[in-house]
Amino acid sequence: MITDIQVDDHGRHRHFLTTEGLSAKAIGEILDTAESFISVGEREIKKVPLLRGKTIVNLFFEASTRTRTTFEIAGKRLSADIININTSVSATQKGESLLDTVRNLEAMHTDLFVVRHPVSGAADLIARSVPNHVHVVNAGDGRHAHPTQGLLDMFTIRRYKGGFANLKVAIVGDVLHSRVARSQIHALTALGTGEVRVIGPRSLLPFAVESLGAKSYTTMAEGLAGVDVIIMLRLQFERMSGALIPSAHEYFSLYGLTPERLALADPEAIVMHPGPMNRGLEIASEVADGPQSVILPQVTFGIAVRMAILARLAGAAGTETKSP
Amino acid sequence: MITDIQVDDHGRHRHFLTTEGLSAKAIGEILDTAESFISVGEREIKKVPLLRGKTIVNLFFEASTRTRTTFEIAGKRLSADIININTSVSATQKGESLLDTVRNLEAMHTDLFVVRHPVSGAADLIARSVPNHVHVVNAGDGRHAHPTQGLLDMFTIRRYKGGFANLKVAIVGDVLHSRVARSQIHALTALGTGEVRVIGPRSLLPFAVESLGAKSYTTMAEGLAGVDVIIMLRLQFERMSGALIPSAHEYFSLYGLTPERLALADPEAIVMHPGPMNRGLEIASEVADGPQSVILPQVTFGIAVRMAILARLAGAAGTETKSP
Amino acid sequence: MITDIQVDDHGRHRHFLTTEGLSAKAIGEILDTAESFISVGEREIKKVPLLRGKTIVNLFFEASTRTRTTFEIAGKRLSADIININTSVSATQKGESLLDTVRNLEAMHTDLFVVRHPVSGAADLIARSVPNHVHVVNAGDGRHAHPTQGLLDMFTIRRYKGGFANLKVAIVGDVLHSRVARSQIHALTALGTGEVRVIGPRSLLPFAVESLGAKSYTTMAEGLAGVDVIIMLRLQFERMSGALIPSAHEYFSLYGLTPERLALADPEAIVMHPGPMNRGLEIASEVADGPQSVILPQVTFGIAVRMAILARLAGAAGTETKSP
Repeated sequence: MITDIQVDDHGRHRHFLTTEGLSAKAIGEILDTAESFISVGEREIKKVPLLRGKTIVNLFFEASTRTRTTFEIAGKRLSADIININTSVSATQKGESLLDTVRNLEAMHTDLFVVRHPVSGAADLIARSVPNHVHVVNAGDGRHAHPTQGLLDMFTIRRYKGGFANLKVAIVGDVLHSRVARSQIHALTALGTGEVRVIGPRSLLPFAVESLGAKSYTTMAEGLAGVDVIIMLRLQFERMSGALIPSAHEYFSLYGLTPERLALADPEAIVMHPGPMNRGLEIASEVADGPQSVILPQVTFGIAVRMAILARLAGAAGTETKSP
Repeated sequence: MITDIQVDDHGRHRHFLTTEGLSAKAIGEILDTAESFISVGEREIKKVPLLRGKTIVNLFFEASTRTRTTFEIAGKRLSADIININTSVSATQKGESLLDTVRNLEAMHTDLFVVRHPVSGAADLIARSVPNHVHVVNAGDGRHAHPTQGLLDMFTIRRYKGGFANLKVAIVGDVLHSRVARSQIHALTALGTGEVRVIGPRSLLPFAVESLGAKSYTTMAEGLAGVDVIIMLRLQFERMSGALIPSAHEYFSLYGLTPERLALADPEAIVMHPGPMNRGLEIASEVADGPQSVILPQVTFGIAVRMAILARLAGAAGTETKSP
Repeated sequence: MITDIQVDDHGRHRHFLTTEGLSAKAIGEILDTAESFISVGEREIKKVPLLRGKTIVNLFFEASTRTRTTFEIAGKRLSADIININTSVSATQKGESLLDTVRNLEAMHTDLFVVRHPVSGAADLIARSVPNHVHVVNAGDGRHAHPTQGLLDMFTIRRYKGGFANLKVAIVGDVLHSRVARSQIHALTALGTGEVRVIGPRSLLPFAVESLGAKSYTTMAEGLAGVDVIIMLRLQFERMSGALIPSAHEYFSLYGLTPERLALADPEAIVMHPGPMNRGLEIASEVADGPQSVILPQVTFGIAVRMAILARLAGAAGTETKSP
């Protein structure tokens, strides 16, 4: 179980690899820590000394300027030294194994790895190999998980909706290939969300999504009815074989979030998207930029949530959030 | 008018996008601030805390190690956190629009964007979209402007010549395609320069350069006669269709700055170049490395001028230059 | 002589370009300084203010994430501002000459260049051109030298073996093409090592290695007999024409370090490798990960040695190591 290695014997988080198996209490604590960091981003001097003298390595085997930037900003606002390493899996395979790369970096007394990798399980593999004082954060591994995205989405929902028990949440799009959706569903379930729905063409829905505690819908008309939260996923052409969806135009006509479809949801419903958006493909600009969209606040909260995770893992006592 | 958005209602600089429309007073204030930063580069500890806790994003859609480095050094000496983002326009077009990229970064509570982009007007477009507390510096947009280069050139001239009123300044080379030349001409005109000349083959001179307040010359013999400042431009092959100049050899024979041609200018004339130089193409090494060359001081002053611009835009009161 | 420019008239190190010509005393002082930095990596706050406000440029004309990372970490733990510049020789040739690039960077008041370049002598060329207050560290130039690797290896040997006088040290592999081996041999000789051996196929041993004070062996059986230190080199396919070694399989069968071959050495012998390793090619995993391997400690010591070199060159008095 991955969750076995996420938490040490004293219940402290050592790694952050997946939202699967996290308790509502554990998630709540991270979100509470993130709340305390929201104010840091709004200050004149956006910096706290919690991780001063710590070395964080952004170890990216898959290009993602956006995710790398969020972690780099979060780390610098915590006063850590940040080392960016962008490499390709082929370069690694040629030169040395993944674990040799990691062992070398940890021999340099680095404290925390933020790992992005195209292969599911890569961050987990690294976490199992590092010594006790080194921490691993999964910034996306293959189709498996993107747990910091999952948690910032929970933070966003909690901020706008107060809680989860009475909510209907719909996740729309390519759920099958989405590590983001997987991390969201686990977290939503753990937090006791009233109802979790997934909406998409049957070819893009996981086979046994019901076993995860979600209901599946193949039409927006049925799936969006009365929901409080709509989470649009990014269509990732590069992860799909051509046959799974007919065409971009047809996809939008069936599953794009338009103002008309948004009207099917609760009038107070919020609209989320992990970004980057394909405007006119999965979401209409009127909705993306409309009053119910919380897409940019998600980005803002993402910095605070990542600061919280970095600080809880690598901070001196692991939970320093006092007067940040 | 771009200048409308450069300055707020209280006359404070919000963005730095172009030298066009800047008053002599506004330019003079920036140069004065830069003077106060010259000493920072000469200290044992080259660092002032003016922008501590601020986040500056170097957002480069066009590769330029040299310009990126000057802004990175300027920002770090002001104690800001610097995030480097190097991307290509095609990557942006694929993933998300320019403005979505910027909105995301500003949602991370970033304070200032240094933007380099191959399309004229890109920095202006961004400046029009950001909220009040976010600032934009144009580090070169298409053929339009490169105003920090323009201002560091003014700083250099003021340092060596004291003022502008009695000067004859010649800009030599591919004026047509040069954003540097455009920014220089606007600034020189605003500062009341005695005479501004552009020299080059007719095919590389703007059609109506006289309307900008400059005189055009097609021979070095005429154009350099008695000038106090010679600004050589870099020949940018990548921006020219082959037909505009006959050959590198012929270009140098007509417009290359040789010691003989330099002798046509005032004996005290200074020689400037924005770099990187094509030695033996637009300038002879004897001149580039000779006693009248101030090409390296330009680079030194460039750090101070960029520090001044960053500090004036993003500093707490916008003009903190006291005991830097 | 390169060593002429490494040391100034007062015996202080100005540059660090090669281990050739360094005295035992000079090496010992650097290793002593490095000892004082070992503890920094083990602290809660891994940072000392020795180079605060200094600007270090990692100027890499050859990709090496690993070496760049070690210098970036070393510099940041000394509180310097680090500028990473990764470029290719072809880009430089096109744009401007190597020395123009360097002159520009030094005009920005940078303090120290860490240079990696595919051409032997590049760092030396730069060191000869910079003004007195600018320092150059060679991070690998062609086949010539990699002196910081050489010194961290000396540090490692001194740590595990106490001294050099009674040691037998074997360097195994492609000695001919190895700048690492060259730097090691010079340092080992200067330190009065009892016996320095090189082992490899005749096609990969330098012609006159005896003149450097080393004995050459073409079989592991003879060469490893009774040695105290085994330094395995990385096989660098990219630097060899195909004909020099028959095949990877055959190479390992003749010169790979297996447990059986390790048993030929002194029972207390240590095994070193500069990394990255080709497991199963020059070294068996049982040996690389075995009890006699000190390969990961080398990496740890490498940070301290590089901190020592940076601090001694660019520190205020050049030797500040007091209460680091």
